Amino acid sequence: MSEQSVVDVAGDGVEVARARAGLLRVCEPPSAAAVALFVDRVGAVQAWRGVLTGHAPRSVLSATAARMQDVSAAEAVRRADADLAAAAAVGARLIGPGESEWPAAAFAAFDGALARGVRGSCSPLALYVRGGSLAGLPGDGVTIVGSRASSAYGQRVAADMAHSLVSAGVTVVSGAAFGIDTAAHRGALQPGGDAEPPTVAVLACGIDRAYPEANRALLDAIGAIGAVVSEYPPGTTPARHRFLVRNRIIAALGAGTVVVEAGRRSGTLSTAAAADQLGRVVMAVPGPVTSAMSVGCHLLLADRFAQLVTGPTDVLAALGRAPDEGRQPPLPGTDPRHPTDGLDADTARVYEALPGRGTVMAADVIAESGLLGPRVLAALAVLELHGLAGRDGPRWRRVVTRR
Amino acid sequence: MSEQSVVDVAGDGVEVARARAGLLRVCEPPSAAAVALFVDRVGAVQAWRGVLTGHAPRSVLSATAARMQDVSAAEAVRRADADLAAAAAVGARLIGPGESEWPAAAFAAFDGALARGVRGSCSPLALYVRGGSLAGLPGDGVTIVGSRASSAYGQRVAADMAHSLVSAGVTVVSGAAFGIDTAAHRGALQPGGDAEPPTVAVLACGIDRAYPEANRALLDAIGAIGAVVSEYPPGTTPARHRFLVRNRIIAALGAGTVVVEAGRRSGTLSTAAAADQLGRVVMAVPGPVTSAMSVGCHLLLADRFAQLVTGPTDVLAALGRAPDEGRQPPLPGTDPRHPTDGLDADTARVYEALPGRGTVMAADVIAESGLLGPRVLAALAVLELHGLAGRDGPRWRRVVTRR
Repeated sequence: MSEQSVVDVAGDGVEVARARAGLLRVCEPPSAAAVALFVDRVGAVQAWRGVLTGHAPRSVLSATAARMQDVSAAEAVRRADADLAAAAAVGARLIGPGESEWPAAAFAAFDGALARGVRGSCSPLALYVRGGSLAGLPGDGVTIVGSRASSAYGQRVAADMAHSLVSAGVTVVSGAAFGIDTAAHRGALQPGGDAEPPTVAVLACGIDRAYPEANRALLDAIGAIGAVVSEYPPGTTPARHRFLVRNRIIAALGAGTVVVEAGRRSGTLSTAAAADQLGRVVMAVPGPVTSAMSVGCHLLLADRFAQLVTGPTDVLAALGRAPDEGRQPPLPGTDPRHPTDGLDADTARVYEALPGRGTVMAADVIAESGLLGPRVLAALAVLELHGLAGRDGPRWRRVVTRR
Repeated sequence: MSEQSVVDVAGDGVEVARARAGLLRVCEPPSAAAVALFVDRVGAVQAWRGVLTGHAPRSVLSATAARMQDVSAAEAVRRADADLAAAAAVGARLIGPGESEWPAAAFAAFDGALARGVRGSCSPLALYVRGGSLAGLPGDGVTIVGSRASSAYGQRVAADMAHSLVSAGVTVVSGAAFGIDTAAHRGALQPGGDAEPPTVAVLACGIDRAYPEANRALLDAIGAIGAVVSEYPPGTTPARHRFLVRNRIIAALGAGTVVVEAGRRSGTLSTAAAADQLGRVVMAVPGPVTSAMSVGCHLLLADRFAQLVTGPTDVLAALGRAPDEGRQPPLPGTDPRHPTDGLDADTARVYEALPGRGTVMAADVIAESGLLGPRVLAALAVLELHGLAGRDGPRWRRVVTRR
């Protein structure tokens, strides 16, 4: 919480809200870095006054000129008030830096990205919110995204994953689009979840809009049980470029981003790129190589841009939130926990029959394992092949591997 | 080709073949390193004489004792002759080091693995072969393996991949098991292939055996058009441990190994492990996360043990055999074929602000993009220059190009 933010909040709340609403209307997101820095330095109220009166750095005036052109200060203020009223009419409030429900930790990542020279990676100046608090994000959140043109397979995976994550206390963040987003939100809204809010939908249009229209009931449910958020002024239409801009917020609000399905040129991949730029864990779900809806996921995985996840357990493990209990080592001898994994039962039995220390004759192993001589000899050969048993002349010893 | 191998070949061919057949019968593969080194040092003929007469290093006698017990030298020689006759009866010959069709480069990898301390990783002493030459391997070969319990999806992927690889001049190596192996061999045998031989089946039983029995016709076809090989003496039964031992040869004969489908504890994973130990490229095909047959592949991929491949183009690219033409970069802005690629951010934003259909006034674009008028006009000019925007009088429209 910066000093100026404290000033804002401590000051006239209505004035702060009006300033933020005004700034959101004249700065098409992502706001120019100059505007963000100015607001951060002098607070929203002062920054807004500067924009209205023309007493602001030239870069700030330049970034807001298009929307302030031919608009009087009085008209600009009136529009801000109208935005706040329109938001309130749909049960939304405007939140900003310094407030307890502002996900400061989530958006701090933008500063890091900006410092690393990532362009256009700016925190929202404020957010319209319908529903619960975002304060727990990104630590308690996972972003699940994917194509609108999803398959039944992808929708099932997304819904199951979302439901399981919410049951584990994780908030599912997505974009309310058709396909994977809808499946993720729906899965998260299923009864039995422990997360508060269970799911967050980030819009690329005004908070008073339902886009897609067919998801109006879903958005109302999310607004009632979870949270719907937007950095766009009420009434803003969901133009194409706004989806790309919005995606950075979706990525920021989760500790990791899971791409469930994505075509070769899916916009979803921009969310993965944003997550990566913000230092988030990028994950992808594989699918049939014969499915065009999984091509984008496979590209992310083939380039090792994303970690492969097959379900909620993998996701939690990738985020370091739970032990990797559901996973098994793939190769015999490569995991100190289960060196005999991948071996048949007899071979594993012979391995167990070898002493932890010292050497024994094959006859001892036969006696110990209770298996027939030829099977024991075959098993010893297999164990030797896998580097799990060693020969010292006629004697055998167990080899404990730790790669 | 070692000096001793030259001696073998230059000497009595029958004597060399008999020595190799004898050694294969008394040394259960993988032969002990001591035996392999002894054969390499003194040649097969001398080594065989040493085993028969007991004039060999103690480690060699120890490694062959089980099979030489209660067997006279004359009987051992008679058995070797019988093996050669049984092989000849099914049209097979015995090949070994120093011969032109011996895949010396493939098996040289075992020496490297042995030098790195990989136990039980020994070249076969010799191979029974029915069909074509192995001389081009592993450079011209790709190993395709997978579960016997495969899905229709996996079989289709394996068959298509094998067929395409053979069309690209690549020999497909596999193990003739049900499921993925069978699909790979069948795909490779389809007409139109350029590889010679198109496919190689490595058996875990005698060359005179058909296992599984239902694949007898397939194995005959492979023997006629491709090559069937085994390091086991004729008559050897396909005991379970032999599949694991055999897998190292399957891995060695390909420049890379592709796992198409594998369960969590599939024996196929041992082929992937062997390929890795031999320094081969390990690849895996993803599948639905809901399929148990893809769990092993996903484990290999999640642990980054294997490179993800979705088809023959990926396989060839992973092996450095062809340009990566089929692949597309996963992230927006990195593909020169994307219309706004190479344009600055403002120009791209203006492009996105143009409607997908219909025309708009420049003022609309200014409002939509949130950029200043002069910048928008400049951007429109740039877009027009690139054929990405068109003018209809004072109105502008987006031009969708297919570059």
